Amino acid sequence: MSSPPYTLYFGTFVHLPREKTGLNHELAIQHGALWVSNADGRIQGFDWNVHSDEDLLALITSKGWVVEGSSAPTFSKRPRVRIVKAEEERNEFFFPGFIDTHIHAPQYPNAGLFGSLTLLEWLQTYTFPMEKSFQDTHRARAVYNRVIARTLANGTTCASYFATIHVPATNLLADLCKRAGQRALIGRVCMDRTDQTPADYRDESPAASVALTRDVINHIRTIDPNGEFVKPVLTPRFALACSKDAMHGVAALAKKFDPPLHIQTHISENKNEVAAVESIYGMSYADVYATHELLTPRTILAHAVHLSDAEKATVRARGAKVSHCPASNSALGSGICPVRGLLDAGIQVGLGTDVSGGYDASVLENVRQACLVSRLYRHTDASITDDEAQRMTLSVGDALYLATRGGAELVDLAGEVGGFDLGMSWDAQLISLGGDVSDLVTGGGDENRVDVFGTESWGEKVEKWVWNGDDRNVRAVWVRGKLVHRRGGSLQKDCSAWSSSSWGWLWGVGAVTIGAFITLRRLK
Amino acid sequence: MSSPPYTLYFGTFVHLPREKTGLNHELAIQHGALWVSNADGRIQGFDWNVHSDEDLLALITSKGWVVEGSSAPTFSKRPRVRIVKAEEERNEFFFPGFIDTHIHAPQYPNAGLFGSLTLLEWLQTYTFPMEKSFQDTHRARAVYNRVIARTLANGTTCASYFATIHVPATNLLADLCKRAGQRALIGRVCMDRTDQTPADYRDESPAASVALTRDVINHIRTIDPNGEFVKPVLTPRFALACSKDAMHGVAALAKKFDPPLHIQTHISENKNEVAAVESIYGMSYADVYATHELLTPRTILAHAVHLSDAEKATVRARGAKVSHCPASNSALGSGICPVRGLLDAGIQVGLGTDVSGGYDASVLENVRQACLVSRLYRHTDASITDDEAQRMTLSVGDALYLATRGGAELVDLAGEVGGFDLGMSWDAQLISLGGDVSDLVTGGGDENRVDVFGTESWGEKVEKWVWNGDDRNVRAVWVRGKLVHRRGGSLQKDCSAWSSSSWGWLWGVGAVTIGAFITLRRLK
Repeated sequence: MSSPPYTLYFGTFVHLPREKTGLNHELAIQHGALWVSNADGRIQGFDWNVHSDEDLLALITSKGWVVEGSSAPTFSKRPRVRIVKAEEERNEFFFPGFIDTHIHAPQYPNAGLFGSLTLLEWLQTYTFPMEKSFQDTHRARAVYNRVIARTLANGTTCASYFATIHVPATNLLADLCKRAGQRALIGRVCMDRTDQTPADYRDESPAASVALTRDVINHIRTIDPNGEFVKPVLTPRFALACSKDAMHGVAALAKKFDPPLHIQTHISENKNEVAAVESIYGMSYADVYATHELLTPRTILAHAVHLSDAEKATVRARGAKVSHCPASNSALGSGICPVRGLLDAGIQVGLGTDVSGGYDASVLENVRQACLVSRLYRHTDASITDDEAQRMTLSVGDALYLATRGGAELVDLAGEVGGFDLGMSWDAQLISLGGDVSDLVTGGGDENRVDVFGTESWGEKVEKWVWNGDDRNVRAVWVRGKLVHRRGGSLQKDCSAWSSSSWGWLWGVGAVTIGAFITLRRLK
Repeated sequence: MSSPPYTLYFGTFVHLPREKTGLNHELAIQHGALWVSNADGRIQGFDWNVHSDEDLLALITSKGWVVEGSSAPTFSKRPRVRIVKAEEERNEFFFPGFIDTHIHAPQYPNAGLFGSLTLLEWLQTYTFPMEKSFQDTHRARAVYNRVIARTLANGTTCASYFATIHVPATNLLADLCKRAGQRALIGRVCMDRTDQTPADYRDESPAASVALTRDVINHIRTIDPNGEFVKPVLTPRFALACSKDAMHGVAALAKKFDPPLHIQTHISENKNEVAAVESIYGMSYADVYATHELLTPRTILAHAVHLSDAEKATVRARGAKVSHCPASNSALGSGICPVRGLLDAGIQVGLGTDVSGGYDASVLENVRQACLVSRLYRHTDASITDDEAQRMTLSVGDALYLATRGGAELVDLAGEVGGFDLGMSWDAQLISLGGDVSDLVTGGGDENRVDVFGTESWGEKVEKWVWNGDDRNVRAVWVRGKLVHRRGGSLQKDCSAWSSSSWGWLWGVGAVTIGAFITLRRLK
């Protein structure tokens, strides 16, 4: 049976309204109905006055729709609609899909393995040997399948992936993302500097860096010509791993396309790394990339922990954006990225898991960590006043903004994903906190880690989700309107009673009495 | 059927050997068998040469035991033994139970609710109103049952609880802990300063603080005379909430017992709090407690983020100990506790969740946070060198030590719990990481958040557990040898084949051929 023309989502919707700059983002929490065209996966409308089953019926009637699963005559020409409900009794709500703006897919088997090392030692000890093993495409398949499944299960609807230097494995990552229905930027890693990379894991030359990257671009353009799911991203690893010629070559390659290709790299993660870059190039880290024309409006710079004011100005002037990776920055002891300082400088910021410098493939964990480290930032500088510290503190709303709208800016999909605005793509997750626990005795209701006691406001429920939620709370995930992950039982409203009733077809013409035999519970 | 005299645990055992001071703790990882007397719950012996089912059989034979569930004649006088196996194929291991040295049980419904507030505002806004509601004992029962269930499910076998000022609810917390089989210190909160506490939530007088606390002590001594599970702990909230007379009265009360009673309070959590204490008392925070004789070898001081060197010396001289609560310290922006500095000063340190300043009732989350903030500490002081920073970094082994052995020191149970030494109580958890995922395709094996790919060493598996583990990995929890929490299927080895065989009784006399028809799989 083909998909009905619309899916009607019904219940509580939470997102962050789009704002150009700054922090202090407030959650928008709305209750009602929102419908998505299954032809293009876009939000076609919403009605925040739909608060009960009667309201829902009236809406469906007014639209001239037939509910899928009811026994409307098959010859009916009325558009069918599928209903997906966020259950109030289960403390469920719809939320935009997360955007992971920085993740190294091949490093996933090392998640949690970094000992007490910092960046440069960690790369040599853990990272390069792991990535090198992806010359084995069978291994790549197992790991990449796992990464995609894990990130989808954590609500990541779009990811900007670093792969490895290997063309076959990188092409495979693109294939698997497309098949799984996850939006992805796919980057073959360029790294050719002989003094900083292992002899058995680097590109042979600057020319090879560019040519092999071209191969990946061609593959991705073949499997997804319009970039509906997967797009290439040029990925010079970082200034210490790339020769000047390779960086120039990559920048030139980006410009050959219209629009220019996405670029991603690392910047100013660790103080020793910054010193090494300045020593080798004789200029600031940002200037190295500016000089090589790698700072563009479609460039994602991971970390940016230790940028000087001058460097911030340079990044801002070129329109490049920053992926904040707080879990990684703490795990490797890199430092605390001054998110407020970046935003004040006019730089767009999103969140990245940075697996496996980051130990967790969950964006939600990085929402938490972004909040936490913003509260510790004041302790890095004794001159910061209480008021300044308060201003630097990311609220739950601020961090969720970075994880959705902010990330959308970084992958150049603002206005397309990251929120529930009219016309945007339905890239979303259904979050379930489970039933209230206040009346339970020992041991009950422990299907997830969030405990709602029943007195919380919706804003407080969202806070509880942020602080204690995990993949168990992600009941379903959609990308471009298509279901790509589901946990637990059926999502659709139970329409079986309608099918068994000869009156079911009346849904299409608005039967007043139909509420008497349907199984829906009233939304409170 | 009564419990057999022994339980034999078989598989991989991980703990931290006891050391007097310092960090750099290495995991001890052993494979074999360990047996516990079910009469007293103590570890009676172990044999690290038991690596196969044949070895296990030989051990049982040599001990003259009969396996429970085999069809040995009921008149057999041989001691029966129950077998619990950590499955190698499921990446399972036994680990000591966690000790949560600082948790506010009544604040649990507020877990995750703190907004962007810091300590003193948070107390007034969230905490005092919540605690006040525990005058309703029905409410207290629902919340306390939940807290105990949650902490047990997270592997907490011993907790030092702050309750509220209410005697009935505090007595109830003791009752419920004892019934659930969780070790606990139970503290009725003393707070009587009229300038810093709400008029409707404080003790009426210093005398009331002492008298009401006595009531709770009497109750706990009645229900558990030997303190096998629950013990009282004197709990003056903190210097800003207690009058001098109340602090003197509590200190005097502690000394009336032999050994003196446990004491717990807060110290030096937040800079504004420290300034307020010094302003009111005209001396340092540590000196306030020293002057009032609250610093004893059985005193737990929560936080200790901003102690001066002189204060550390005072704390050390009195033998008081520190509960490090990293999740809370980050969430409320309090700062980074210099754990290495405390240890260098000779102060014992354990971990606390500090619910609900801390957002999570999991000690494991605080193991993670302890590691993370120790890696950020270097950024609080530009003069810290790389070597010094490395020395301040807590490894996974260090943080797990704090969560087990360190915590045992704080609750004065060192040598009793926190490790797997001969004669210690079997307070333990069975951790399961699940089967290897390397050969899975999309979507499989996601019953927990840890992915083992099959190439990891046991040390690396423990690291993965620390960084991505949660309550899903806690398959079982024991306190004093008794099972107090279980997740999923049966724990005991399947002995059904033995029961159906008339030869089963031969287990008791050492049948050489018995391996041929048992269902056990060989340990690799």
